[in-house]
Amino acid sequence: MKPRNRTTGARLRIVLEPEIALGPGKADLLEEIEQTGSIAAAGRAMGMSYKRAWSLIEEMNVDFGTPLVHTTKGGKSYGGAGLTPTGKKVLTLYRRMEDKAGDAIRGELKALRKLLPDIAD
Amino acid sequence: MKPRNRTTGARLRIVLEPEIALGPGKADLLEEIEQTGSIAAAGRAMGMSYKRAWSLIEEMNVDFGTPLVHTTKGGKSYGGAGLTPTGKKVLTLYRRMEDKAGDAIRGELKALRKLLPDIAD
Repeated sequence: MKPRNRTTGARLRIVLEPEIALGPGKADLLEEIEQTGSIAAAGRAMGMSYKRAWSLIEEMNVDFGTPLVHTTKGGKSYGGAGLTPTGKKVLTLYRRMEDKAGDAIRGELKALRKLLPDIAD
Repeated sequence: MKPRNRTTGARLRIVLEPEIALGPGKADLLEEIEQTGSIAAAGRAMGMSYKRAWSLIEEMNVDFGTPLVHTTKGGKSYGGAGLTPTGKKVLTLYRRMEDKAGDAIRGELKALRKLLPDIAD
């Protein structure tokens, strides 16, 4: 995955409650977990320690009062992880918000970039 | 000013170039400077040191290749500051992006908040 966080455009940080926020880092982590089926691999893909990845996941699980990520311990799928239905919903809603916001601000973004020096448009 | 950064809703971080970004902190700082006519007062209103405020301003001035904030030294208006035409344009464009993005994601934001535990809507 190309970390969307490092490409140009609008990044959305959704403040749901004063202490509860969802931004591109958490969204990318959820997406990587869905794609790789592993928290460790997802963290590596994002240049994030396993500990940091887990801490973000725990934060989300607490915020939403239900796990967004499920893990399977033991057996063949040792270490396997994936998104719960709530996790999938959260990720889908966030990506839809990104798309809609991106569409909505296209004109202003262009105008803002034109103010930059030596930027070919 | 109520720091918009601490209210719920969408915060926009606009990545104009890989190393050039504009987010709620810089936008609020520009707005405070416009309202107070003083970098020190603007910084104080945001709980930010004068040094930090200046460093953000210098960053923006370099990014846009032209000052966004003008200062007046000496005379009656000692220490006075305000936005240049470019500074005003940048702030206006950013606020318009916030408004448009906020409108665009209203439905998803509501759906996302409904996933939170014990949140009255």
